Amino acid sequence: MINLHGIFPPIPTSFKANGDLAGAEMQENLRRLSAFDLSGFLVLGSNGELIHLSDEEAVEVYRLSREAIPGNKLMIAGTGGQSTLQTMRLSLAAAEAGADAVLVLHPYYYKGLMTQKALVAHYHEIADRCPIPVIIYNMPANSGMDLEASDILAIAQHPNIVGVKDSGGNLAKMGAIVAGAKPGFQVLAGSAGFLLPALSIGACGGILALANIAPQKCIDIFNALKKGDLESARKDQLSVIALNAAVTRGWGVPALKAAMDHLGLYGGPGRKPLLPLPPEHLPILLNLLESTPMYP
Amino acid sequence: MINLHGIFPPIPTSFKANGDLAGAEMQENLRRLSAFDLSGFLVLGSNGELIHLSDEEAVEVYRLSREAIPGNKLMIAGTGGQSTLQTMRLSLAAAEAGADAVLVLHPYYYKGLMTQKALVAHYHEIADRCPIPVIIYNMPANSGMDLEASDILAIAQHPNIVGVKDSGGNLAKMGAIVAGAKPGFQVLAGSAGFLLPALSIGACGGILALANIAPQKCIDIFNALKKGDLESARKDQLSVIALNAAVTRGWGVPALKAAMDHLGLYGGPGRKPLLPLPPEHLPILLNLLESTPMYP
Amino acid sequence: MINLHGIFPPIPTSFKANGDLAGAEMQENLRRLSAFDLSGFLVLGSNGELIHLSDEEAVEVYRLSREAIPGNKLMIAGTGGQSTLQTMRLSLAAAEAGADAVLVLHPYYYKGLMTQKALVAHYHEIADRCPIPVIIYNMPANSGMDLEASDILAIAQHPNIVGVKDSGGNLAKMGAIVAGAKPGFQVLAGSAGFLLPALSIGACGGILALANIAPQKCIDIFNALKKGDLESARKDQLSVIALNAAVTRGWGVPALKAAMDHLGLYGGPGRKPLLPLPPEHLPILLNLLESTPMYP
Amino acid sequence: MINLHGIFPPIPTSFKANGDLAGAEMQENLRRLSAFDLSGFLVLGSNGELIHLSDEEAVEVYRLSREAIPGNKLMIAGTGGQSTLQTMRLSLAAAEAGADAVLVLHPYYYKGLMTQKALVAHYHEIADRCPIPVIIYNMPANSGMDLEASDILAIAQHPNIVGVKDSGGNLAKMGAIVAGAKPGFQVLAGSAGFLLPALSIGACGGILALANIAPQKCIDIFNALKKGDLESARKDQLSVIALNAAVTRGWGVPALKAAMDHLGLYGGPGRKPLLPLPPEHLPILLNLLESTPMYP
Repeated sequence: MINLHGIFPPIPTSFKANGDLAGAEMQENLRRLSAFDLSGFLVLGSNGELIHLSDEEAVEVYRLSREAIPGNKLMIAGTGGQSTLQTMRLSLAAAEAGADAVLVLHPYYYKGLMTQKALVAHYHEIADRCPIPVIIYNMPANSGMDLEASDILAIAQHPNIVGVKDSGGNLAKMGAIVAGAKPGFQVLAGSAGFLLPALSIGACGGILALANIAPQKCIDIFNALKKGDLESARKDQLSVIALNAAVTRGWGVPALKAAMDHLGLYGGPGRKPLLPLPPEHLPILLNLLESTPMYP
Repeated sequence: MINLHGIFPPIPTSFKANGDLAGAEMQENLRRLSAFDLSGFLVLGSNGELIHLSDEEAVEVYRLSREAIPGNKLMIAGTGGQSTLQTMRLSLAAAEAGADAVLVLHPYYYKGLMTQKALVAHYHEIADRCPIPVIIYNMPANSGMDLEASDILAIAQHPNIVGVKDSGGNLAKMGAIVAGAKPGFQVLAGSAGFLLPALSIGACGGILALANIAPQKCIDIFNALKKGDLESARKDQLSVIALNAAVTRGWGVPALKAAMDHLGLYGGPGRKPLLPLPPEHLPILLNLLESTPMYP
Repeated sequence: MINLHGIFPPIPTSFKANGDLAGAEMQENLRRLSAFDLSGFLVLGSNGELIHLSDEEAVEVYRLSREAIPGNKLMIAGTGGQSTLQTMRLSLAAAEAGADAVLVLHPYYYKGLMTQKALVAHYHEIADRCPIPVIIYNMPANSGMDLEASDILAIAQHPNIVGVKDSGGNLAKMGAIVAGAKPGFQVLAGSAGFLLPALSIGACGGILALANIAPQKCIDIFNALKKGDLESARKDQLSVIALNAAVTRGWGVPALKAAMDHLGLYGGPGRKPLLPLPPEHLPILLNLLESTPMYP
Repeated sequence: MINLHGIFPPIPTSFKANGDLAGAEMQENLRRLSAFDLSGFLVLGSNGELIHLSDEEAVEVYRLSREAIPGNKLMIAGTGGQSTLQTMRLSLAAAEAGADAVLVLHPYYYKGLMTQKALVAHYHEIADRCPIPVIIYNMPANSGMDLEASDILAIAQHPNIVGVKDSGGNLAKMGAIVAGAKPGFQVLAGSAGFLLPALSIGACGGILALANIAPQKCIDIFNALKKGDLESARKDQLSVIALNAAVTRGWGVPALKAAMDHLGLYGGPGRKPLLPLPPEHLPILLNLLESTPMYP
C-alpha cells in the first residue's frame, strides 16, 4: 500500500519567457526542494498547469520530473482530463514514466451529467487499468463543481483508489469522508490554509502550494501535530494563512511563481492566458514573504 | 470581558400543534439541558426560528428563557433583523430581559448593497447602543451571503463586538479570522460538523444544533482537546458527523425536533412553512440516534 | 378575473431623514405618477423595503397608498414574510386596506427545506383564506433562491393564484411558465431590463423599478409591442438598459431614490442598513438620466 | 463582413460504439440537415464534445465537416481551449480546413485569474493572428463562469471579433450587449429556449442544439419574427420549450443523440464519461418528440 503521509508540494511547471517548457529549471527546483523532509511531489496539478500543456508536453514533464525526484520521494502525477480516454492515456504514460500514483481531477465540463454513476464509471475504468494507485481530486474553485462526500465514498470503493485530495476547505465534508471511508483510505488537505484542521480530524498530510515556498513551515505543522504539540502547530498554522491565501485563492499561480523567483528558485511566467502578477501586488507579496521568513 | 468558551446549544423554540408558542415546554427543555456542563444557550438563532416570530413573541421568548436558564450559564440572544431599527429594538429588549450577549446575523436581503461599509455601519450602530456584548453571525446556508474574513475583521474593530459564530465551515476563513483578529476576539464554530477542526486552530467553543440532542458528546470533544487528548477528540468528532449532518444541512430543524421528541425532550412542530420531518426519513434518523447513543 | 396587463411601478416607501415613514411624500409620489397610463402600483415590494418595516408600519403603508392610488388603478400589495402566519396576517390586512391583489415572495430562510411540497402548502394556505388574488414572486437576487418553473406551475394550480412576477431574467424559464400554465395565468416581468423579451413570449406586463422614473418609456415599450411595432419597442428597450441596470442590480434602491429626488419626486433616504448612493456614483446616474430624458 | 443571421445547429460529433470517430456518419448528418434553410453549422461546440477530442481528432473533424457542408452554408468551428497556445493552434487549423469563423469559449479553469484584462489579451491575441473572424462564446452552465456584458464589450473592441454566442439566457445582459456593442456586432442566442426573446431585442440568430432535431421549427420562429408575425413566432417558441429543455439543460448531449437516432439521423453514443440517456428517460423524450412533430 502506498503511504501518502506528509507534505507534498504541487510543483509549478516552469516555462521560458517564450512559453516553452523550461525542463532544466523545473528539475533544479525539484532537486533543491528535495533537500527538505518532504514525502514527495505532485507534478502537473492545478499549480502545474496541466490544463495548459499538450499531452506530449505532459508526458515530457512526467519524465523530466521523475529524473529529478529522488527515488525515496513519491512522484504523484496529475492526469485528469475531460474524457476517460485522455485521462487513461495520461495515467498510463505517467505510470510508464515512473510515477508512484496518479491524481485524477474529475471531469466537470458537462456538470449536469456528472452524476455519481458517471463519476464512478469514469474513475473505476481508470483504476481498473492503471498499474499505479489512483487518488481522487476535488477542486471546486477551478472545476466549478464540488464532489459530495457520498460521491467520493462511492468512487473510493475500488481497491486501486487509495485516497483523495480535497481543496474545497469544507471540513465537515472532509470529516464525513474520513468517517465513512474504507480502512486505509488516505485524505490529503489541498491547501495549507486548512492543513492543521484537516490533520486534526485524520487527514494524513497535504498537497500544498505553500510547500513550494515554505516547505519547512508545512513540515513543522505536520510534525508538531504528529507528536501532539498542538500549541506549536497552531502557532505555525496561523502564521502562514495570509501568505498562503496570497499564493492560492488570492492571486494564484502567478503569485506563487513570483514568490519562487524572489526566493531564488525558478518561478518564471505562467502560460497565457495567465498574466504575470500585477506589479501593484508584488510589494504586498514580498512583504508577506519577509514578515513570515520561511525559506532557508 | 464575557467568556464564550465551551458548548452552547441553540435551543429550538417550542410550538404547540396549533402554532402557538409553547413556553413551558421550552423552559423545561432548557432546565433539563442545564444538567450538562454547557456554558450556556443561544435563544432565537436559526434553530430557534427567530425569523418566524413577531417581535412581541421574540421578547417573550427572551424573558421565558432567562427564567429557565440558570444564572451561572450564559444566555445569548439572537436579535438580527433586516433593518438596523429592528435589530436595535430586539437587542435592547434582549438586554432588558437579561441576556448576556446578542448574536446578530447580518442583513442580507439587499445582498448587493451590503458592502463592508454598510455592514460596519450597521454593526457599529448596534454595538454603540447595546448594553451587552455583540457577537457577529455568519450563516451562508440561510442568508445566501458569505461574509469575508476581511468584513468580519473590520466589523470586529468595535470594542463591544466580542466574537463571531461562523457556520460556513470554511476553515481557511476561520483561520484568517483567528489570525487577524484583535486580542480576545472569540470565534465560535457554528456546527458540530467541524467542531474539532475549529478548536484546533483556536476557536473557543461552539454553538451547535447537535448539542441539543448530544450535549455530552460535544462537551467531550471540547474537553478532550483542551487537555491535549487529540486521539479521543477525533474519535468522538468522527462519531457524530452523520447524525449532525442529518439535523443540520440534511433535514434541518424538523429533524432536530423529531430527535428531541424521540429523546424525551419536547420537540414538537416547527412553524409553517416548515413541514414535519418526512416520515420516510424518521427511521434513518432514529437509527443514527441509536447507533450513536448520546443522551443519557 | 383581475387583469394584470400593463406597467406597474413598485413604488419605494418614503422615509424622513430620521427614518420615520414619510406618508404624505409617498402619497404625493403616487398621485403624480398616476398621471401616467399605468395599470397600477406595487406597494411594499423589494423597492418598497417591506423587509425594513414593522407589520404595523406595513399596514399603515397599505392604507396610505390606497388613499392615494386612484380607484381605476390597481394596488398590488407585497405581503410575503418568512412564516405562513406573518404572510397571512399581512395579506388579510392588505385586502382589508383595499388592495386588489397580493404579491407573495416565497419564504427562503430555510432554503434547503423549501421543497415544492412546502412551497405549495404555504401558498395554498394563503390563497385559501386571502379574499383577493395572490401573485407569486420570484426574486433570486434578494432571496438567494430561484424557484423552478415546475415549482411555480405547481403553486399556480390554486384557483386564487393568478400570476407570477419573475425578476430572475431567465427567459427560458419564463417561457416554460407561459407554456405550461393554466389558461389565464398572468406572467409579469420583474425588471425593465428584459421587458420586451418577456412580452415577446407572452408576459402580460411588468412590475418595473424603472417605471418610477421613466414611466412613459416603459408604457411606450408595452404599447409598441401591443400594436406590433417591434422596431420601435426594441429601440426604446435598448435605450433604457443602462439606466435600468443602475437603479436595479447596479446600485439598487438608493440609486432609484436619488433619481427620484433629481426628477422632482420624493426620493429621500432608504432605511438603514441601506446607505445613500455613494457620491461618486451620482454624476454617472445623473448622466444616465440626462442622456435618456424620460420623465416629462 | 461575415453574416451570422439565421439558424445554426451545433452538430454533435459522431462516435462509433467503441468510441472512435464516426466521420462518415457525421458527414451524412450534415448533408441531410443541409436540406433545410439553415445558415450553417457549428462544428465542435459543447454539443460537439470538443473537450473530449485530441487536437488531431479536432482537426480531422474540421476537415470532414467542411467536406460535407455545402459552400453556401457557413462552417463555424469551435476552437476554445484553456491555453492561448492551444486555442491559437486549433483556430489556425480550423481556418486552414476552410472554416468561415471560429467560436472561442473563454478559458475558465483559473476562474479567479480571468480578469477582463486577461480575457481581452487572450482574445485579441487570437483575433490578431486568426485569418477568419472570431466569435466570443459565453456558456456558464459548462464553464462555471459567466462573462459580464462589460467583459464582452471590451473583448469586442477588436475589429476581427464579430459576434458572441451567449448561452446564459440572461436577456437583460444580452440587451446590454446589443445596446453597447459596436455597429455590426452580431449576437447569437445559444439556446432555442430563448430564441424569440433574443431576436426581439436584436439578436441576429441562434446556434441551437434543437436545430439538430427540429430545424424547421427554429427556422419558422426566425422567419416569423423577421416578417413581423409575432403571434406565430410566439406560438412556435412556446411549443418547443419542453423538448428543448430535455435535450439541453435537462439531459444534455445523450438526449440529443437519442433523439437524432429516433429521427433517423445518426446519434450514437457520446464519449465517456458521458453515459447513454438513462432508459427511464427515453419514453419521456420520445413522447416530447411525438407531441411536437418537427422533423419532416
